[in-house]
Amino acid sequence: MTRKLHLNAFLMNTGHHEASWRLPESDPHAHVDLAHYVRLARTAERGTFDSLFLADGPQLWNSVAQRPAGALEPLTLLTALATATEHIGLIATASTSYNSPYNLARRFASLDIISGGRAGWNIVTTAGTQAARNFGLEAEPAHAERYARAAEFLDVARLLWDSWEDDTVVADKAAGVWGDDARIHPPRHRGTYFRVEGALNVPRTPQGYPLLVQAGSSEDGKRFAARYAEAVFTAQQTLAGARDFSADLKARTAAEGRDPDHIKVLPGIVPVLGSTEAEARRRERELEDHIVHEHGVRHLEELLRLAPGSLELDAELPDGLPPEEAIEGAKSRYTLVVELARRERLTVRQLIGRLGGGRGHLTFTGTPEQVADTIERWFSLGAADGFNIMPPVLPSGLDAFVDHVVPILRARGLLRTEYGPRQTLRERYGLPRPANQHTATATAVSPTAALV
Amino acid sequence: MTRKLHLNAFLMNTGHHEASWRLPESDPHAHVDLAHYVRLARTAERGTFDSLFLADGPQLWNSVAQRPAGALEPLTLLTALATATEHIGLIATASTSYNSPYNLARRFASLDIISGGRAGWNIVTTAGTQAARNFGLEAEPAHAERYARAAEFLDVARLLWDSWEDDTVVADKAAGVWGDDARIHPPRHRGTYFRVEGALNVPRTPQGYPLLVQAGSSEDGKRFAARYAEAVFTAQQTLAGARDFSADLKARTAAEGRDPDHIKVLPGIVPVLGSTEAEARRRERELEDHIVHEHGVRHLEELLRLAPGSLELDAELPDGLPPEEAIEGAKSRYTLVVELARRERLTVRQLIGRLGGGRGHLTFTGTPEQVADTIERWFSLGAADGFNIMPPVLPSGLDAFVDHVVPILRARGLLRTEYGPRQTLRERYGLPRPANQHTATATAVSPTAALV
Repeated sequence: MTRKLHLNAFLMNTGHHEASWRLPESDPHAHVDLAHYVRLARTAERGTFDSLFLADGPQLWNSVAQRPAGALEPLTLLTALATATEHIGLIATASTSYNSPYNLARRFASLDIISGGRAGWNIVTTAGTQAARNFGLEAEPAHAERYARAAEFLDVARLLWDSWEDDTVVADKAAGVWGDDARIHPPRHRGTYFRVEGALNVPRTPQGYPLLVQAGSSEDGKRFAARYAEAVFTAQQTLAGARDFSADLKARTAAEGRDPDHIKVLPGIVPVLGSTEAEARRRERELEDHIVHEHGVRHLEELLRLAPGSLELDAELPDGLPPEEAIEGAKSRYTLVVELARRERLTVRQLIGRLGGGRGHLTFTGTPEQVADTIERWFSLGAADGFNIMPPVLPSGLDAFVDHVVPILRARGLLRTEYGPRQTLRERYGLPRPANQHTATATAVSPTAALV
Repeated sequence: MTRKLHLNAFLMNTGHHEASWRLPESDPHAHVDLAHYVRLARTAERGTFDSLFLADGPQLWNSVAQRPAGALEPLTLLTALATATEHIGLIATASTSYNSPYNLARRFASLDIISGGRAGWNIVTTAGTQAARNFGLEAEPAHAERYARAAEFLDVARLLWDSWEDDTVVADKAAGVWGDDARIHPPRHRGTYFRVEGALNVPRTPQGYPLLVQAGSSEDGKRFAARYAEAVFTAQQTLAGARDFSADLKARTAAEGRDPDHIKVLPGIVPVLGSTEAEARRRERELEDHIVHEHGVRHLEELLRLAPGSLELDAELPDGLPPEEAIEGAKSRYTLVVELARRERLTVRQLIGRLGGGRGHLTFTGTPEQVADTIERWFSLGAADGFNIMPPVLPSGLDAFVDHVVPILRARGLLRTEYGPRQTLRERYGLPRPANQHTATATAVSPTAALV
């Protein structure tokens, strides 16, 4: 079997371009409209994507004046989408800093059962003071501490997901014995951040546990990914950078004693499509024309830790910005923005235009053929196992990708033409079902046999 | 309009009788089978019930040997059921002791939006050491402290649900203004148990917030219900007791400055149905014959704080049991069990048989006509605004109730014959949409106009 591309649809209200909501075609109430998300999920399924994905943070960002704010809670929304789809994986973002392992492990187990093995968890540690202050803290915990908590969270969550062996239920009606207590393994965990005594109150799920996804590219983030992640979303602006990132991550994964093929790297791409190059450029300009630059300046100043009024729209970034080590928030995003501006010598206005499309992810403007070429080049040269598709405008941008780029990728043999037999999300990504830590023979269990 | 009965379907894997899973008809894997719950929800909707309900606790109870254990997380399961139904209300149990207000308020808001205003929250404080030890505590907090935390939780949650005024989104594309920041009201709450700074990241929902339901009947529980609850589930063994309970709760509600008609009291009933009285009795015996008495003795000893081996199967309860004040767990359940045993002079074996049916709720064995008579009597004599229907076996017990009791209740004019126009859960229960604390004119907003 030839290696196939993995595609994830990153869904976000009216699209990833910050000005998308202002287009005549966009519904400014899409952020809380289930029908909008059902339509997007079905389109992604028509395009035989591996999965769809929702980002999240437990806070209301900045101001509601600038663009659609707020969102349905991802696990809740994905549960509704599970019943509206059949095949596609469902990846929800949830924070290890602002959840407790018992509750979150249980919710993911429930979604995995309800969806027939299609749940994924994008693990985030949640940067920012705003979120911290919604959960009783004065300020966000330090970056390294957030990651230490995340690692312990994952260890506990996996103990909880393994607390029922696969064949715990014996259902002997005549003897009056429903389950085998010897196959229940309470975590009895006492760590630095968590104490969790008892077994989960959900049986082991079709996938054992959700596909583990990670998206931070800081040093802490990469170390965490190498240890736990099975898929990684990443923002990469150049093919060379993406290759280095992927090679580094796979080497780190191997160093953790894991198969380096069991971590899939998916850079984000914002495809601005047109049937001709000129049409695609016009679409790009239409979006840029709707950007309100004052908002962008304010956001950049916050990201770069600069006082209000420090940046000039038509000048480059000032010298003397702090190094990444000094940043306790979203480290890798900080570095990506600074490096992009320096490398291409962008003015603040140009930088805002570039970030407006995909917040630092690669924006590619062109025809379906050109977008397919880029995807194929990155994929075949080892820069990507697949892509995180981030349409600038939704639903039209996902329609365009599925109607015009997907057929090219299929014709080139890069993408499946149909889903085929029922598979779990982990099987779609070519990953094995994790063995239960308590069951010696677990590797012998076929994932399909374990589907309930 | 004549006063109508409110019916809630209390769903529980293979049914409320503890031995139900052992019947030939029962699926011992029903506890994690979405299709089972979809079927039950649609049956309840066919019976024009107001709502359905899932109980919950964040722990794996005791042993898995005795009966089906574990359950899908209620808010997750109800979200899936929201997409499989159109009219029925969806009431999820969630704990104020083991959740944070920001996360839980958001999840209920999300379900309320996804379901078009059909979300309800059964507020519990969660008794027991087992749950406490899954969340970093050594022992459960004292009863009064759990309720103090619950009250603060509710105050914060309502601030969060009101943190967006109903008309926050202005969606002015031309001006580039999406929302009105002046209509966002961050809680900035600093209390005893919680500090929550920022606004919720979900807009105000069709119902404003979920229907608030409560089920504890201790002194603390009743005080809490009078202040917050709009519907109360209660276990009552006698009509006189139910009348006293209801009158007391409505008086307390009025004393809180609320309309006593804005709290609906629903006693639980376990209807063991047969087309003749003899057939119903046979069904009751069939269920009792499947009880494993050793398990029941152990549970009773735990509930009554007795050493193992203290109880004899064919003797009455011993003297000298502790008073309710000494119990820090489920106070009202303790008292109900002790009073039931004393009042009817039951042996331990008989008590276990009675509790096996509905864990202290009224078990009524008879024909559909007789069950309807009981319901009508309690309803017309002020002992109930409706009933929490707890079929002993599922799905068959709910089918039987909807096919045979519901038509009688409809013929007597006690129950709606169809749902009629689209309504929120709160409207079905005849309750007003709560005004936003920050909007002076909120009472003028019609609930239907606010449906998204």
